[in-house]
Amino acid sequence: MERQDGRRNNQLRNVEFACGFQRHPAGSVLATFGNTRVICAVSVEEAVPRWMKEQGKIGGWITAEYQMLPSSTEQRTEREAIRGKLSGRSSEIQRLIGRSLRAAVDLEKLPGLTLHIDCDVLDADGGTRCASITGASLALELAVARLIKDGILTENPLLARVAAVSVGMLQREGLLDLCYVEDAAADVDMNVIMTDKGRYVELQGSGEEATFSDDDLTILLNLAKNGLKTIFDLQEQALRNYLEN
Amino acid sequence: MERQDGRRNNQLRNVEFACGFQRHPAGSVLATFGNTRVICAVSVEEAVPRWMKEQGKIGGWITAEYQMLPSSTEQRTEREAIRGKLSGRSSEIQRLIGRSLRAAVDLEKLPGLTLHIDCDVLDADGGTRCASITGASLALELAVARLIKDGILTENPLLARVAAVSVGMLQREGLLDLCYVEDAAADVDMNVIMTDKGRYVELQGSGEEATFSDDDLTILLNLAKNGLKTIFDLQEQALRNYLEN
Amino acid sequence: MERQDGRRNNQLRNVEFACGFQRHPAGSVLATFGNTRVICAVSVEEAVPRWMKEQGKIGGWITAEYQMLPSSTEQRTEREAIRGKLSGRSSEIQRLIGRSLRAAVDLEKLPGLTLHIDCDVLDADGGTRCASITGASLALELAVARLIKDGILTENPLLARVAAVSVGMLQREGLLDLCYVEDAAADVDMNVIMTDKGRYVELQGSGEEATFSDDDLTILLNLAKNGLKTIFDLQEQALRNYLEN
Amino acid sequence: MERQDGRRNNQLRNVEFACGFQRHPAGSVLATFGNTRVICAVSVEEAVPRWMKEQGKIGGWITAEYQMLPSSTEQRTEREAIRGKLSGRSSEIQRLIGRSLRAAVDLEKLPGLTLHIDCDVLDADGGTRCASITGASLALELAVARLIKDGILTENPLLARVAAVSVGMLQREGLLDLCYVEDAAADVDMNVIMTDKGRYVELQGSGEEATFSDDDLTILLNLAKNGLKTIFDLQEQALRNYLEN
Amino acid sequence: MERQDGRRNNQLRNVEFACGFQRHPAGSVLATFGNTRVICAVSVEEAVPRWMKEQGKIGGWITAEYQMLPSSTEQRTEREAIRGKLSGRSSEIQRLIGRSLRAAVDLEKLPGLTLHIDCDVLDADGGTRCASITGASLALELAVARLIKDGILTENPLLARVAAVSVGMLQREGLLDLCYVEDAAADVDMNVIMTDKGRYVELQGSGEEATFSDDDLTILLNLAKNGLKTIFDLQEQALRNYLEN
Amino acid sequence: MERQDGRRNNQLRNVEFACGFQRHPAGSVLATFGNTRVICAVSVEEAVPRWMKEQGKIGGWITAEYQMLPSSTEQRTEREAIRGKLSGRSSEIQRLIGRSLRAAVDLEKLPGLTLHIDCDVLDADGGTRCASITGASLALELAVARLIKDGILTENPLLARVAAVSVGMLQREGLLDLCYVEDAAADVDMNVIMTDKGRYVELQGSGEEATFSDDDLTILLNLAKNGLKTIFDLQEQALRNYLEN
Repeated sequence: MERQDGRRNNQLRNVEFACGFQRHPAGSVLATFGNTRVICAVSVEEAVPRWMKEQGKIGGWITAEYQMLPSSTEQRTEREAIRGKLSGRSSEIQRLIGRSLRAAVDLEKLPGLTLHIDCDVLDADGGTRCASITGASLALELAVARLIKDGILTENPLLARVAAVSVGMLQREGLLDLCYVEDAAADVDMNVIMTDKGRYVELQGSGEEATFSDDDLTILLNLAKNGLKTIFDLQEQALRNYLEN
Repeated sequence: MERQDGRRNNQLRNVEFACGFQRHPAGSVLATFGNTRVICAVSVEEAVPRWMKEQGKIGGWITAEYQMLPSSTEQRTEREAIRGKLSGRSSEIQRLIGRSLRAAVDLEKLPGLTLHIDCDVLDADGGTRCASITGASLALELAVARLIKDGILTENPLLARVAAVSVGMLQREGLLDLCYVEDAAADVDMNVIMTDKGRYVELQGSGEEATFSDDDLTILLNLAKNGLKTIFDLQEQALRNYLEN
Repeated sequence: MERQDGRRNNQLRNVEFACGFQRHPAGSVLATFGNTRVICAVSVEEAVPRWMKEQGKIGGWITAEYQMLPSSTEQRTEREAIRGKLSGRSSEIQRLIGRSLRAAVDLEKLPGLTLHIDCDVLDADGGTRCASITGASLALELAVARLIKDGILTENPLLARVAAVSVGMLQREGLLDLCYVEDAAADVDMNVIMTDKGRYVELQGSGEEATFSDDDLTILLNLAKNGLKTIFDLQEQALRNYLEN
Repeated sequence: MERQDGRRNNQLRNVEFACGFQRHPAGSVLATFGNTRVICAVSVEEAVPRWMKEQGKIGGWITAEYQMLPSSTEQRTEREAIRGKLSGRSSEIQRLIGRSLRAAVDLEKLPGLTLHIDCDVLDADGGTRCASITGASLALELAVARLIKDGILTENPLLARVAAVSVGMLQREGLLDLCYVEDAAADVDMNVIMTDKGRYVELQGSGEEATFSDDDLTILLNLAKNGLKTIFDLQEQALRNYLEN
Repeated sequence: MERQDGRRNNQLRNVEFACGFQRHPAGSVLATFGNTRVICAVSVEEAVPRWMKEQGKIGGWITAEYQMLPSSTEQRTEREAIRGKLSGRSSEIQRLIGRSLRAAVDLEKLPGLTLHIDCDVLDADGGTRCASITGASLALELAVARLIKDGILTENPLLARVAAVSVGMLQREGLLDLCYVEDAAADVDMNVIMTDKGRYVELQGSGEEATFSDDDLTILLNLAKNGLKTIFDLQEQALRNYLEN
Repeated sequence: MERQDGRRNNQLRNVEFACGFQRHPAGSVLATFGNTRVICAVSVEEAVPRWMKEQGKIGGWITAEYQMLPSSTEQRTEREAIRGKLSGRSSEIQRLIGRSLRAAVDLEKLPGLTLHIDCDVLDADGGTRCASITGASLALELAVARLIKDGILTENPLLARVAAVSVGMLQREGLLDLCYVEDAAADVDMNVIMTDKGRYVELQGSGEEATFSDDDLTILLNLAKNGLKTIFDLQEQALRNYLEN
């Protein structure tokens, strides 16, 4: 099987991170995975959600919101603010983003703060949730650096860097980093979210009107782990370039 | 570590299925996993969603809705119809239920039909999404049997039976079928959904403000696979008893 | 005229109350009126609504919510949480349930408490609002007994037991306890809610694209009063059996 | 007991009907009951609700909406369009108005038409639902007259004229046509809706944290019936004056 | 070009203000511009919006809401409370009304008060936003007079009286005070809101699928200024008549 | 008075247009006015709104939606999809954008098409509605060029190019192209939308708790007209550069 953009099965698309993309948020990254581009921002609120106070929970909180710009898809997507509610898909993705980043942060070291992650998809071509998590992880580092510099944080709360990649089975072959056309055709679709220390943060594998075996699982996890190694390197370079300039 | 209800780490709770629990739906099962009880129903609509027609998709559709009765939890849960919208959690769970059951059905063999799965949690003590999927799979078989008997279906669209179980890591030990207290304390929480043919339908593992290793993953998958074997047996018995009487 | 299930005009359906049906709520009853079954629960919140504080009202409050499970009807009913709002019918019924139970309670003897009544219809075959009120009245007694036992209440706030029954005129004859088919065909439909001391709590008679005379009213009230006597006996037995075991 | 406005217990407030109050609707009446004023309009739509077509029901339909102007109450009432949903109270009242008027119309003689009744409360001082029904009944007659004149209807679909009045028990005395202060203090509150032929359309009696006896019921029904006789006369005069000018 | 109601191009419709139209609000006016009638009310709340406190803003606030009665238009307008949200048009108009009246009030002289302006259109025939602003300005004066009389205000916060009128270009001629038919046909539609001291409060000119020149602008502003002089006289007379009686 | 960024009173900020900014829409422009950046997209739907069919209107339609990314402001802005409804401000702005662009298009030459304009604010520093209109006008030209090239349109429906700029009075001086700090402090705020043929499309001047004179109006219109000349030149250059490459 030949991939439509000529990539090898275990090859990522072009992955880039433009740090400092927006003017106001504490951390801001435009994450690119091929033709998928996501605006990732971290804004700081000096307050915590009411439920934390009610439950006597100390520290801070990280929450995420995800949305596609209507113009990000080939057929224009209806705006959720017009429909008056979030789609189930958006709701599920933003819960995943928040959970993934919280897993790599010591929330007790964010006393009295809420970090709002906003992932807005500028161009969609598959893998938007993985690009969102991966970009947001960098934006989070930028925001934490600013908070430490401004004296708002005294300790670094970050336990690890996080990245995500999609893998899938298509015509019985494992593929890394699926574009939209591949994703729509795949029998199995899996999102693998890991830390740069090689531990799983989240694993979501799903047969799309299909099922998969233990062998398939092994193939997919190996593909993902190799791809993530490259992505962690690209994150590191983007961050170093930005902070040095 | 001793489990709070005295179970071994690899021991299920008491699992039962009461078939024919409600009067009207084509298939109806009360699924019990310990103190968790879920009312699972399959209702038949002789129409398909508009998007299927628009996309020229043939066959039928299966969709699911999930809700907790306000009185199902220790602290009463606010009713989603009163708040005017589904919680992100409910939305995510019902998408999972629908996806899981569609994976085991040949939708082309449900021409012109929509099967509505309703999972309403009567008593909640952890694992409600797994009980929902497992009960709904039986309710689906009952509904299909009725549709065949009534001459509405001529072929059996079911490819496999589906069941689900939760596993988790707590204090570095793997546990099968977590109750609510265990679930809230676990570092890693995984839902494993499989067919009775031993293939994965869906795999969702999530570090709860924690991460997990490849070894953890292996332990959890083995626990789940053994638990699911027992559950498939219990489904089979419940169904046979019901249909013979 | 012969009734479709062979009952005499002044005969109730099979009426039963299963106490302790759910695990968590302070009081819980499954009320059965023929093929109609309603899950009635009373949950306790140690707080009062804000308007009570604002108006300086002392004591506590009782409020009710009513909903049909989508699978409770022959044609599946759309879920109100999905539509995003309560139907006018549900809203009207839950206001009636709340008002009926408050009428039989000395709210000043519930200091600082809100009792939430949840009536969720499991199977619908006419008379669901009457089954709801009648079951909720028992669930309320169970909850009060628990609150007294737990030392949260020191005095019994209950002034009377409450029950409800529907009556109607069909083909110029008065009928007691209408099932769905009778209810849909009736010219006049009346719900009579009384205390076990023989006083009216609420009376709602309605011509369905028809009207009724003073004589009709007399016939209907007599039917209802006789039926309610039997229902009060059945409530008493169910409660006694449950509390003795 | 002396009533706050000096009326006898069986005395109505000043009741008036200004026909032709608005410019556009087919029928329009400003109904006055003392300080309560309600704008009642009947607008004609040449279509029937979709459910009528789906159920193969012939004829037409009458539906009602009720709302209080925010400025109609002593403390300004929040606007329901701003809150984004109807209150339970408004929903209940508009269902009552619609039901009451349908009971006095032969819907089969409204082929293909929907009559929309709008009751908007201009000034509220108790009894707004009764003023709404009573005014809407006249507005309906005006609308029907116009439809017959315009040749849209060929037969008169009206079976009777409808009126409504509130009665209540306060300090053990029965009172006719309660103003707001009386209504708030009453132990029992009953709305009686009848045709000018002396038949009941709807009867809604409710103990307000209280109960009532058969004797109370008799007193209240007699008060209401006498009051309604006067109201039917006033409707007749208002209509005749309007149509003659 | 002859206007459909025979007016000269620079002639207003019949303009009237009925003060004290409703019973409860502090200020109440029924404003008439030809066949357009709007109920304008000012209600007083002894509190300010939360954002004023949060921003440390002193003084008080004025806010407005606008709605059309469903029966105010030739084709009945759907009720916004039923649709569950305000239309864009209503939202835009009520923002304009609030802004226009705030411009003529020294908000610091309304300490701790919110004045709620409600404009409900009784009959619509073009120019409802101008009638709303013009009537609301009078209602505001009535409310302020009552607040001063009641000792709630010690100083008059009003800086000027406000009025509004619509002008438009139709078939290359400028027209004053357009009725609905003219408004729908006009190429340019402009709302001019001024104080009685001859200063602009707000100017909104809009080509309706058309554009306009500087000369058109001059013609329209002159027409509006002349019309507004007459309207200010009529406001003055209505107020004086009302306060003297 | 010195402007905070050192500009002369009649000087624009840096204005730029990046054509082809997004991948999928038919026309796409990133419009920059100083620190304000707006993503403007035009997507094509091959259908017209239902009301056009119902009213028998021929041709096509142009509609607009406007939203600020939560991360576009100094204090993060709450997402409208989460609140479940559009703010009044967003609703007003998107109505203005749609109206402004429709004024410069012959809608009859868009047979059977709806052009959806999406303006999403990436960074906000005042003047976002003007940047939206100005960028959307270019995006519209790009979309039309593509539609003509693809043979979907045979005639050019564009009547003129449109641009918008804000002007205001601050401390009695007229200023061109206000940034956020100036806008918040201004006494008068005016948005002037014109065609490149020198005609007004829309004029919205508003005293912000202040009023303005005829002389102020003249000053503001002259400032705007001069600024718009420069903007039309910049639009032209951007378009030419893009189409030539």
